[in-house]
Amino acid sequence: MPSPIIQTPDDKSLSARIALSAAAAQGAHLRTEDFGDWLAGRGRANAFRVERIPFAELDGWSFQESTGNLVHRSGRFFTVEGLHVTEEAEPHGDGPYADWYQPIIKQPEVGILGILVKEFDGVLHFLMQAKMEPGNPNLLQLSPTVQATRSNYTKAHKGGDVKYVEYFVGPDRGRIVADVLQSEHGSWFYRKSNRNMVVEAVGDVPLLDDFCWLTLGQIHELLRRDNVVNMDSRTVLSCLPFEDSSDGALLSDIELLSWFTGERTRHSVRTERVPLDSIPGWKRGESTIEHEAGRYFNVVAVSVRAGNREVTGWTQPLFEPVGLGVTAFLTREFDGVQHVLVQARVEAGFLDTVELGPTVQCTPDNYAHLPEERRPRFLDTVLRAGADRIRYEVVHSEEGGRFLNAESRFLIVDADEADAPLDPPPGYAWVTPAQLTSLVRHGHYLNVQARTMLACLNATAVSTR
Amino acid sequence: MPSPIIQTPDDKSLSARIALSAAAAQGAHLRTEDFGDWLAGRGRANAFRVERIPFAELDGWSFQESTGNLVHRSGRFFTVEGLHVTEEAEPHGDGPYADWYQPIIKQPEVGILGILVKEFDGVLHFLMQAKMEPGNPNLLQLSPTVQATRSNYTKAHKGGDVKYVEYFVGPDRGRIVADVLQSEHGSWFYRKSNRNMVVEAVGDVPLLDDFCWLTLGQIHELLRRDNVVNMDSRTVLSCLPFEDSSDGALLSDIELLSWFTGERTRHSVRTERVPLDSIPGWKRGESTIEHEAGRYFNVVAVSVRAGNREVTGWTQPLFEPVGLGVTAFLTREFDGVQHVLVQARVEAGFLDTVELGPTVQCTPDNYAHLPEERRPRFLDTVLRAGADRIRYEVVHSEEGGRFLNAESRFLIVDADEADAPLDPPPGYAWVTPAQLTSLVRHGHYLNVQARTMLACLNATAVSTR
Repeated sequence: MPSPIIQTPDDKSLSARIALSAAAAQGAHLRTEDFGDWLAGRGRANAFRVERIPFAELDGWSFQESTGNLVHRSGRFFTVEGLHVTEEAEPHGDGPYADWYQPIIKQPEVGILGILVKEFDGVLHFLMQAKMEPGNPNLLQLSPTVQATRSNYTKAHKGGDVKYVEYFVGPDRGRIVADVLQSEHGSWFYRKSNRNMVVEAVGDVPLLDDFCWLTLGQIHELLRRDNVVNMDSRTVLSCLPFEDSSDGALLSDIELLSWFTGERTRHSVRTERVPLDSIPGWKRGESTIEHEAGRYFNVVAVSVRAGNREVTGWTQPLFEPVGLGVTAFLTREFDGVQHVLVQARVEAGFLDTVELGPTVQCTPDNYAHLPEERRPRFLDTVLRAGADRIRYEVVHSEEGGRFLNAESRFLIVDADEADAPLDPPPGYAWVTPAQLTSLVRHGHYLNVQARTMLACLNATAVSTR
Repeated sequence: MPSPIIQTPDDKSLSARIALSAAAAQGAHLRTEDFGDWLAGRGRANAFRVERIPFAELDGWSFQESTGNLVHRSGRFFTVEGLHVTEEAEPHGDGPYADWYQPIIKQPEVGILGILVKEFDGVLHFLMQAKMEPGNPNLLQLSPTVQATRSNYTKAHKGGDVKYVEYFVGPDRGRIVADVLQSEHGSWFYRKSNRNMVVEAVGDVPLLDDFCWLTLGQIHELLRRDNVVNMDSRTVLSCLPFEDSSDGALLSDIELLSWFTGERTRHSVRTERVPLDSIPGWKRGESTIEHEAGRYFNVVAVSVRAGNREVTGWTQPLFEPVGLGVTAFLTREFDGVQHVLVQARVEAGFLDTVELGPTVQCTPDNYAHLPEERRPRFLDTVLRAGADRIRYEVVHSEEGGRFLNAESRFLIVDADEADAPLDPPPGYAWVTPAQLTSLVRHGHYLNVQARTMLACLNATAVSTR
């Protein structure tokens, strides 16, 4: 009988090493106080210009004659199509029968979002990249080591190779720390998922321009600044195997999984892809496709000039939300253990009915025309919270490769029994950050906003975890 | 600060109680040696007759004019439609580009498969039901306490209430032991899932006709008999929270999840629902829809007369596989720890690309026309295994409410390095039964055949787990 030849890493020691990196306020390379200058320098070294253009000036993109879908002539990248969504209330739903049409991005390829880690002086450092994305409000943000669609790394761009991708795929890749398929924005993408990876490098790693090594503690500090750590970084960071004991949680793991199963079962969501030019309530102009009441988002087009991207100039469509979002966890301690209130959310593009989102996830402007009782639950509690109850408030933006200026205020707000009772309303549950860490090892439990919130919780958790 | 009001059960003690029930060869009610007589008695008490009929004699079912789809006039239950499947090999696929058409069952409702458990004399007993399903080769098998589509328990049948369903849904249900959405046959169902539940009753439970209380040890004994424990029971049993430590496993949990993520990523499967009357390679006669080479399965119709079902007589379509299946785990011990070889399987009806199946899962007749190198890998190892290497061999059938005489030989076969190397081929991985138990707490990891195999592993595991 041969002995196992495959090394079995000790998951416990891995979480301890991650905790050690989170506790390291400074790293072996760039100092946190020098980060702003470094990022600005990378911006100066690479000239970018993003301009809105009419759809007619898109290069390689056009509206398909038979459907009005916005497609690329190569058949790759993504398409903008129509979606018809019905959520049936019967027999176990919650609320009025819902039925709507919307544009949606269809991008069936699974991309890789990967962070390479490596020990320096006994502390794990994360290899992060200063990366321009045309939709970022400030263009340049901190992205994972690798952020690549399959089109990227199989050269559909006809541009350069994806740097460091060999650490994530192929026979010589490093040691896996996390590797899970996670959903992206269910309101904007149709069943999109990305492979979230953290890989520990074996041996030396060359440090290329636009990249820097940071401890997790340094990244946590940057997560307290507006629009620095991009969405792709946040979702990968949320998948780190922190300690995930359910000790002290209100719900046992069995109860939590059962509650989730119940939420998935009581909703029945049907989606049908339809031609983009057939969807009621939306109108297409020279430069935008917009909702006739001006709500939700616009589809627009931009041209991009950049020096350090796979290609040096391109045009593309983007989705542009119409208002500033509010994404928030209400948090309470029960018997000294921090809990956050999650919501089982239906989003049309989810692969399977519901995923867990933050307590509040909305764009308030979209509800301004509705009476108070139809505004999202807990929104007012968040908006009215005094400064002494706000543990965290930072503006982050969503993926700048698809979304233009898609900013939200991300908040963690202390609540009490009057705001958010121990026995929450249907569709909500109190869970611990450690339970979220346990769930996020698997796909399709936490939506992308909840994953950003989990990364932010970890960034603020030194004293409470 | 209020104290938690929700009881948090101790998962560890639950697995110990399950192990205790598994070790109980006899229970407080029916003796195992009397089970056969009891089941035969239930058969005599309820007269059943199932006959094949032409499609034209179906009551309430017909071929839709525009599509040829087989539908019920109520719009409920299920439909038989066409499916066009393409599996793209590029850039990371395994094997030739695949493209085929087939009939498929579409049943969007999520049903409940639930077993009620209760302690007698300090040992958990399982409430099982003698239930007739028209597709069972022997009609009557042992089913879960509740086996109900939503149409069932919301009265689409216009028949009686579903017995014991109040223990599984609603405010007075019992304590949850397991509750997870699991896929059904991906080759025959389009994205079907069922809610697999085990619930512990609080207080007295009336014992109705056709039901009996058995220990898990008794059920394990019955799992060693042909065609006794039905598929619905087997899948629910597989979800029991046995101990799930990954101690001694070749792959750590992180490595196993990463391997699974890689398998899901490297396959690209596209499915398109198409009219049933448009699918090439299949022909519709008076009484069957069949593949033109006689392979795979037939769609047929039956009439049913029964005394103890929700309605006393009905007709319905069934899928009838054309040959006896082979479903097998190869098993090896590494450093004294049992492992089984799982395969990441593409099935057209899966919600998400691949799930884990047994080492071998096929109907050999479907491959009889192919050269040896295109027969399923490891099939010959299973078929040629001598009796001394066969740890388990029992014929079980698939769900008799949809499938007619869908029998497979389920085998657990000892292998050595020559049969099945420590470093398995792409698409295969060695895992421990405990790791499968850990995965099956979540949906869409183990396909229904792997779940049956896990239940069989547990039934044979007294000495090895």
